[in-house]
Amino acid sequence: MNSQQRRALLETFANPHPRRAYRIEHVQPEYTSVCPVTGQPDYGEITIRYVAAARCVELKSLKFYLQSFRNEGVFYEDVVNRILDDLVAAVKPREMAVTGRFTPRGGMHSTITAEYRARSRKG
Amino acid sequence: MNSQQRRALLETFANPHPRRAYRIEHVQPEYTSVCPVTGQPDYGEITIRYVAAARCVELKSLKFYLQSFRNEGVFYEDVVNRILDDLVAAVKPREMAVTGRFTPRGGMHSTITAEYRARSRKG
Amino acid sequence: MNSQQRRALLETFANPHPRRAYRIEHVQPEYTSVCPVTGQPDYGEITIRYVAAARCVELKSLKFYLQSFRNEGVFYEDVVNRILDDLVAAVKPREMAVTGRFTPRGGMHSTITAEYRARSRKG
Amino acid sequence: MNSQQRRALLETFANPHPRRAYRIEHVQPEYTSVCPVTGQPDYGEITIRYVAAARCVELKSLKFYLQSFRNEGVFYEDVVNRILDDLVAAVKPREMAVTGRFTPRGGMHSTITAEYRARSRKG
Amino acid sequence: MNSQQRRALLETFANPHPRRAYRIEHVQPEYTSVCPVTGQPDYGEITIRYVAAARCVELKSLKFYLQSFRNEGVFYEDVVNRILDDLVAAVKPREMAVTGRFTPRGGMHSTITAEYRARSRKG
Amino acid sequence: MNSQQRRALLETFANPHPRRAYRIEHVQPEYTSVCPVTGQPDYGEITIRYVAAARCVELKSLKFYLQSFRNEGVFYEDVVNRILDDLVAAVKPREMAVTGRFTPRGGMHSTITAEYRARSRKG
Amino acid sequence: MNSQQRRALLETFANPHPRRAYRIEHVQPEYTSVCPVTGQPDYGEITIRYVAAARCVELKSLKFYLQSFRNEGVFYEDVVNRILDDLVAAVKPREMAVTGRFTPRGGMHSTITAEYRARSRKG
Amino acid sequence: MNSQQRRALLETFANPHPRRAYRIEHVQPEYTSVCPVTGQPDYGEITIRYVAAARCVELKSLKFYLQSFRNEGVFYEDVVNRILDDLVAAVKPREMAVTGRFTPRGGMHSTITAEYRARSRKG
Amino acid sequence: MNSQQRRALLETFANPHPRRAYRIEHVQPEYTSVCPVTGQPDYGEITIRYVAAARCVELKSLKFYLQSFRNEGVFYEDVVNRILDDLVAAVKPREMAVTGRFTPRGGMHSTITAEYRARSRKG
Amino acid sequence: MNSQQRRALLETFANPHPRRAYRIEHVQPEYTSVCPVTGQPDYGEITIRYVAAARCVELKSLKFYLQSFRNEGVFYEDVVNRILDDLVAAVKPREMAVTGRFTPRGGMHSTITAEYRARSRKG
Repeated sequence: MNSQQRRALLETFANPHPRRAYRIEHVQPEYTSVCPVTGQPDYGEITIRYVAAARCVELKSLKFYLQSFRNEGVFYEDVVNRILDDLVAAVKPREMAVTGRFTPRGGMHSTITAEYRARSRKG
Repeated sequence: MNSQQRRALLETFANPHPRRAYRIEHVQPEYTSVCPVTGQPDYGEITIRYVAAARCVELKSLKFYLQSFRNEGVFYEDVVNRILDDLVAAVKPREMAVTGRFTPRGGMHSTITAEYRARSRKG
Repeated sequence: MNSQQRRALLETFANPHPRRAYRIEHVQPEYTSVCPVTGQPDYGEITIRYVAAARCVELKSLKFYLQSFRNEGVFYEDVVNRILDDLVAAVKPREMAVTGRFTPRGGMHSTITAEYRARSRKG
Repeated sequence: MNSQQRRALLETFANPHPRRAYRIEHVQPEYTSVCPVTGQPDYGEITIRYVAAARCVELKSLKFYLQSFRNEGVFYEDVVNRILDDLVAAVKPREMAVTGRFTPRGGMHSTITAEYRARSRKG
Repeated sequence: MNSQQRRALLETFANPHPRRAYRIEHVQPEYTSVCPVTGQPDYGEITIRYVAAARCVELKSLKFYLQSFRNEGVFYEDVVNRILDDLVAAVKPREMAVTGRFTPRGGMHSTITAEYRARSRKG
Repeated sequence: MNSQQRRALLETFANPHPRRAYRIEHVQPEYTSVCPVTGQPDYGEITIRYVAAARCVELKSLKFYLQSFRNEGVFYEDVVNRILDDLVAAVKPREMAVTGRFTPRGGMHSTITAEYRARSRKG
Repeated sequence: MNSQQRRALLETFANPHPRRAYRIEHVQPEYTSVCPVTGQPDYGEITIRYVAAARCVELKSLKFYLQSFRNEGVFYEDVVNRILDDLVAAVKPREMAVTGRFTPRGGMHSTITAEYRARSRKG
Repeated sequence: MNSQQRRALLETFANPHPRRAYRIEHVQPEYTSVCPVTGQPDYGEITIRYVAAARCVELKSLKFYLQSFRNEGVFYEDVVNRILDDLVAAVKPREMAVTGRFTPRGGMHSTITAEYRARSRKG
Repeated sequence: MNSQQRRALLETFANPHPRRAYRIEHVQPEYTSVCPVTGQPDYGEITIRYVAAARCVELKSLKFYLQSFRNEGVFYEDVVNRILDDLVAAVKPREMAVTGRFTPRGGMHSTITAEYRARSRKG
Repeated sequence: MNSQQRRALLETFANPHPRRAYRIEHVQPEYTSVCPVTGQPDYGEITIRYVAAARCVELKSLKFYLQSFRNEGVFYEDVVNRILDDLVAAVKPREMAVTGRFTPRGGMHSTITAEYRARSRKG
């Protein structure tokens, strides 16, 4: 599945309270993909936190989007940034953060966090 | 039950210490409503944190108010904002935050937080 | 027991290190009082955090002071503020915070926090 | 909904390994019903453990069956026994246990466990 | 309050499933009484587990019964046995166990468990 | 992958202490397969406990064997029994138990346990 | 302090329910003594579980008895057995167990349990 | 280091209470050795539980004995049995059990338990 | 032991990386002293956090220093400040904090924290 | 192994998203080295958090690098700073922090944290 096909999986709906900057968090503890070097499966938990602008991400489509990595070879550092890029493109949020917490490999476990903040926002 | 009937459930009492900006938190781990798409029940924990001005929300009426969503079809992002709007209207607090932590659906669990801050307050 | 009698229970001792602004915390998980509406007992944990000036509160007298609410009818929002007022009067601290975490009633549990800061203090 | 209608909700499938006496456990932490005295909602977790004979209970139908108590007035001691009776009638297991763990009411929380064992079984 | 008055607080209802030997557990984490030597309050959690015969103990009356020890001076070893005696007299169970877990005094915490088993029962 | 190909993945080595009946447990928290009805991924933790006779299962081959279910459609009740059958065939243990603990679906989570005991063993 | 002086610290009171074989447990997490080899302090938690006959051990005297080891040099294996011997001599129980859980030394932590059962008891 | 050299590390002392069959447990969470196939380090927690006869194992020597595996290549199933054999030879206990809980490798974690019981013991 | 003798117990070593302001934390959960009023032992956990300048505190000497309070009568509020004063005198840190968390007395547990910051430091 | 040989173990790869300042964390709970004074093994957990610039550290090489301390004598305060120095030299990050949490010695456990921040970075 190429990048464009994957992005097409994400559906959105109109933010029911677009004037308030409120926080939304979705946690998927059932993430899995494949190590691009060894071909062995990787496992982890993906957390998405964002403040919506006009659109929210639809939960079922988000589940299918994350499942699309199931048999894909991808590095930890890469996948977290790609999920952030795809979701920013889909919902154009005021701000968003994506965190991946991956299970131990060689005794060592890793956590990657990438963040996006829309330019026009005044803190 | 329409929005006006629901708001009418909320009762308040005079803040016994109105001159001090102290914090009040109520947590209801027994929230349930219905998914507006599938008709299936949703479950979660609603946390209300506020600094009262002249009025406090009465606990028993808050319980009945939250129970009024039991058989209502409502989205996560919507209900948290509506609870905030209704409580702000009822107790006119200095500031308030409402958080909904919902149980897993499709393996994924969600948390929504909305906040209100009265304009005249100087931090 | 009236308010003056209750305050008289609190004993203090000279702060052994009055020149340093250090933090003191006492936690009483065995607080109980009575609901002023239903007459049913309430239970909770009272946490007192303060920075002493000239005096510290004596622990045994604090225990007796908190026990004095055992058969008193008092609201959550009220008792936390009254404990703060009584302790501020007794030890005249640089700053103080009192938190009450109360056990579930109607499925819902509540936490109240009130704070005091002496005027002359420069942060 | 009468008892017969409720039982009709339960669907079964052929046990894929009927010759082995293996254990199956399903836990539904999202149970809710209504107190028959006060009309207030009750909440709890229902655990079903059984050793199947010819049939297994289908998971989705079990979810709908447990949801059917949502707006029903029923006592703790009663509902656990009725769930056991209905499931025994539906899957005719070698043995079965149903446990309900209910959330605090009046500060007190309750757990009820009822068990069934087919007569012909030799331990 | 004398022993007879206290027992009179306990109300019972007909066991809805008297032919099945199922287990009932009620846990009251909000128990308090008074030390008969020092007059200081004691705190603990009372757990009641039983198999009913013809009658079950009614929950609200059980709460009031346990509250009746609030200002009574009674030893740990004594109160657990007296609760067992009173409940056995009230509901005449097939079997019953009462456990009291008391909070630390002098750094040390105590747990007392007393059990009853009806004579005619065949295990 | 058919059943014979899957079994061929399991490798064994000679039990280094065959005269002692000692216990071996392997836990794989990273199990995943696919629901045969919906095609959606399932997740769980597989625990294998056994007492070896002449052979032990080699850990790396066990990992590959469990991974072979990754894109297979299989029911909970079925997969636990099939893992037990395959491992019993491969290592011919004195006794073995396989447990699958699966993550929530529809709010409900399930645990399946199947056991094997060699006939000639005297307990 | 010699062995006889230490035993003299233990006081007892008449078992208020001598006809019922109920269980009593006291846990002291604040035990400390001194290593007889290095002179360094040891720390641990002492648990005493017993079924009383005619006498119960008085809690305050038990605290003083356990404190008497504070500056004594004694091995783990020895002290647990000596506490058991002293308490059996003092309260002549139907049965008793003493457990010592000691904090890590050289990375390793230890637990010792010794038990006593009166000869005339029929299980 | 050969097997005889390793056993020579274990020192014992006379059981101070040889007539009572009491339980001793030592837990070493800082075990490490080397995988005999890959040369990579393995980590785990070793638990030793025994009932002494005439001798007890001395703690410091036990620490040195377990450290002797630090740079040794040894399989999980093998090392647990060898520790048991060495300790049984050193202290000739009434009974003994050794458990090794090893950290995840390939996502999977393992626990091995081996037990010894002296022949003359009557249970 | 007087104050000067106690301070003499503390040994230091040259900070191996004096140019970097890095954080050091030592936690001693095995602290004990004696209540100056009742003579009863007190227990707690002492946490020391600091940023070294030229010297670091040596761990073994820190252990002996903290042990020197074992049979000393000292108040909670006092001992935490005295440990801070002694350590500041010994290692002359850039900054340091000492926290004492003490076990329950009269049901109530206390935490004291005192901090030091060198004057010349620019934040 | 000298310092230069150890640094040569670290391999890097091109940061796949060099324009975004995202956070990477690797945790190795299986760190061990040797006390330079006593020769006894030390154990701990090493946490590395950084924001990459052009390069990321490769996970397998990081594992080998950390393993290289296995039989090295090194102080807590030293090793944490040296890991930071080596990793900063290898990946030239925007910022980095290394934390070592070491297991109890003499009852006391220690945590050391050192941080690096590139000069050109604007916060």
